[in-house]
Amino acid sequence: MTLTSPGPTLGVVGGGQLGRMMGEAAAPLGVEVVVSDPTPDCPASPVVRDQVVGDFDDPGTVRTLADRADYLTFEIELADPDALERAGEEAGVPVHPAPETLRIIQDKYVQKERLGEAGVPVPDYRAVDSAANLRRALDDLGYPAMLKAREGGYDGRGNVPVESPGDVEDAFAAIVGAAPGATPDDPAGAAMVEEFVDFERELAVIGCQGTDARDTFPVTETIHEAEILRETVSPARTDEAVLERAEAVARDVLDVMEGRGVYGIELFETPDCDVLLNEIAPRPHNSGHWTIEGCHTSQFEQHVRGVTGLPLGSTERRFPTATANILGDVADRQPARLHGERAVLETAAAHLHWYGKREVYDLRKMGHVTLTGADAGPGSVLSRARDLKSGLTFRAER
Amino acid sequence: MTLTSPGPTLGVVGGGQLGRMMGEAAAPLGVEVVVSDPTPDCPASPVVRDQVVGDFDDPGTVRTLADRADYLTFEIELADPDALERAGEEAGVPVHPAPETLRIIQDKYVQKERLGEAGVPVPDYRAVDSAANLRRALDDLGYPAMLKAREGGYDGRGNVPVESPGDVEDAFAAIVGAAPGATPDDPAGAAMVEEFVDFERELAVIGCQGTDARDTFPVTETIHEAEILRETVSPARTDEAVLERAEAVARDVLDVMEGRGVYGIELFETPDCDVLLNEIAPRPHNSGHWTIEGCHTSQFEQHVRGVTGLPLGSTERRFPTATANILGDVADRQPARLHGERAVLETAAAHLHWYGKREVYDLRKMGHVTLTGADAGPGSVLSRARDLKSGLTFRAER
Repeated sequence: MTLTSPGPTLGVVGGGQLGRMMGEAAAPLGVEVVVSDPTPDCPASPVVRDQVVGDFDDPGTVRTLADRADYLTFEIELADPDALERAGEEAGVPVHPAPETLRIIQDKYVQKERLGEAGVPVPDYRAVDSAANLRRALDDLGYPAMLKAREGGYDGRGNVPVESPGDVEDAFAAIVGAAPGATPDDPAGAAMVEEFVDFERELAVIGCQGTDARDTFPVTETIHEAEILRETVSPARTDEAVLERAEAVARDVLDVMEGRGVYGIELFETPDCDVLLNEIAPRPHNSGHWTIEGCHTSQFEQHVRGVTGLPLGSTERRFPTATANILGDVADRQPARLHGERAVLETAAAHLHWYGKREVYDLRKMGHVTLTGADAGPGSVLSRARDLKSGLTFRAER
Repeated sequence: MTLTSPGPTLGVVGGGQLGRMMGEAAAPLGVEVVVSDPTPDCPASPVVRDQVVGDFDDPGTVRTLADRADYLTFEIELADPDALERAGEEAGVPVHPAPETLRIIQDKYVQKERLGEAGVPVPDYRAVDSAANLRRALDDLGYPAMLKAREGGYDGRGNVPVESPGDVEDAFAAIVGAAPGATPDDPAGAAMVEEFVDFERELAVIGCQGTDARDTFPVTETIHEAEILRETVSPARTDEAVLERAEAVARDVLDVMEGRGVYGIELFETPDCDVLLNEIAPRPHNSGHWTIEGCHTSQFEQHVRGVTGLPLGSTERRFPTATANILGDVADRQPARLHGERAVLETAAAHLHWYGKREVYDLRKMGHVTLTGADAGPGSVLSRARDLKSGLTFRAER
């Protein structure tokens, strides 16, 4: 193994905050980053070598990226597995995680099928292609349940709760309307419905695969509101047995995933201390941002290490650590101007991460605040992170 | 105070490893970095917004940089204070640290004069402009002593020890030969001679100035060989009284420094536990690289905060931390290929920092290794950092 200058170039489909933080993590390792993104001057752009401007699923863009890269990866599931596979083959550049893994994950139904077959515990679910068989499925699963577009959903978009038999028609119409490529005349394969998990809390594990090693970061507790991640804290405030179970499930998930890099694995803890898989992201994940300050190796550095074939770093947690997302809190799309950040910058052990997005809109992920606590427990760091975040707003200064 | 996208742009004269690490630190704060450097594709280039190619002291280059920036700073003392001052005035862009401070520091004799007047303890010294008055000065100061070019020296270049009266003529000729602008016919102002300090150990403090605050990072022990920094460890392995004295001297130094940002303050600890100032760098310094992992705020983030008028961050040390520099160990200039880095990457709590320099030559600073130790003392982290570094080489693999 030898480190050269310039080092290898990592091509990343997607140049949002995840690509930006990959760039921040790659530099000390001597790995250069080029991203592709449809938005000129995307968030990653000012901190990486270069940006190829083009759609996530445009084969020409992906091929241009591949020609400039020694390794290909992606930071967004909207990347096209076929385009990645072809570009990687034609340019002779390895793609991690494997395009086949991206294909499996992109279809939530196939994802559940494959994981269930491998013995990963998942909530009960059915594929549905009409309001009529959604109704039949719910006779089995019971109400309430969650109807999901099989493809293209994120941050709660593409998910519709079905509370009672009276909701079935509207819920199905809403999902078919949201599903890419599906129409009321041809909704086949568009949706799945999943039993409602009355979870005790939500957990997440960042799993990582290297050339010959596999590891997991410490279990994180995640706090969502309206299906959008708001806060995380690690260690998760739960029993040791649940932490062990969550790690075991994450390792079983990794068995199904092909290709190197990190995987965000979202889990439910049930009231009887069992753990069920919720969803997987084949990339660094919002639930792992705390690792930047909280662990020896961040999830972003680990992803860069994994994809480029460097040895995985230690996943050990250094301190109890919490994060709070800075989300858009304005109704209309407008230039981003965040107020109140002085208190964050003045707080020892608080870290501001600003994603550099030009515009803010309601609930857009604009940045996050991390708080580490050498002598504090997880509840304390979480409440301090929450307090700091509560002082931030994009609304005009009062 | 308001955070915008794009945020402010920091223009940095110099795009070496210090500019690169400033860029890495600026991104999470939403600060964009543009550097100027004569070497196309300099080390900072792949991780910052842009590079202006031009000499450090070229007024047109500095002006171009100023026109693109909201704040100007420098990462190398070869920056020209007049060009900075003029460009800053013409473009209406503040320059930090102040050009006047850079002027004082560039001339080691003036630096000593100003600090001595302010009550900072310095070794005894004399300005010399001929071999004859060097000899007279040494009648006072005694042998051995250190003859220094007043300007342009770094990493031991421009420093010549004078061991005995027989060395005087050769030492003076060597320094005049090395001093920019000085000739044997006009050596005036070219040199100074300083008493030899038989130090117990060398220490360093990163001092920082913000808009309305002043602070110091914890005292670092520095280990030089042939006047080039090899290793650092913090806490320094010395008495509490010495640490307090070092901090007090650093604060007195800051009183003389005009302008915001961080200052690398190098000190001698004498056998009788006193502290003398050695030299000052008006910028982040190799002795403070450990703060990236070892403190809540790194010296680079602190510099970016200071210069751009953000509040200073906490300088608290999180763990005992050591660094070892990765220096060129080959006689001839050649493409940089580092061998043996796998062991560093595989060690928990070890962090590799690669500067991305294309070519290596003897003693060139190519990167550094940091080791943090939650439960270990400074001696232990230092010896582990040293061990890891000893496995690295640019020589052809054996």
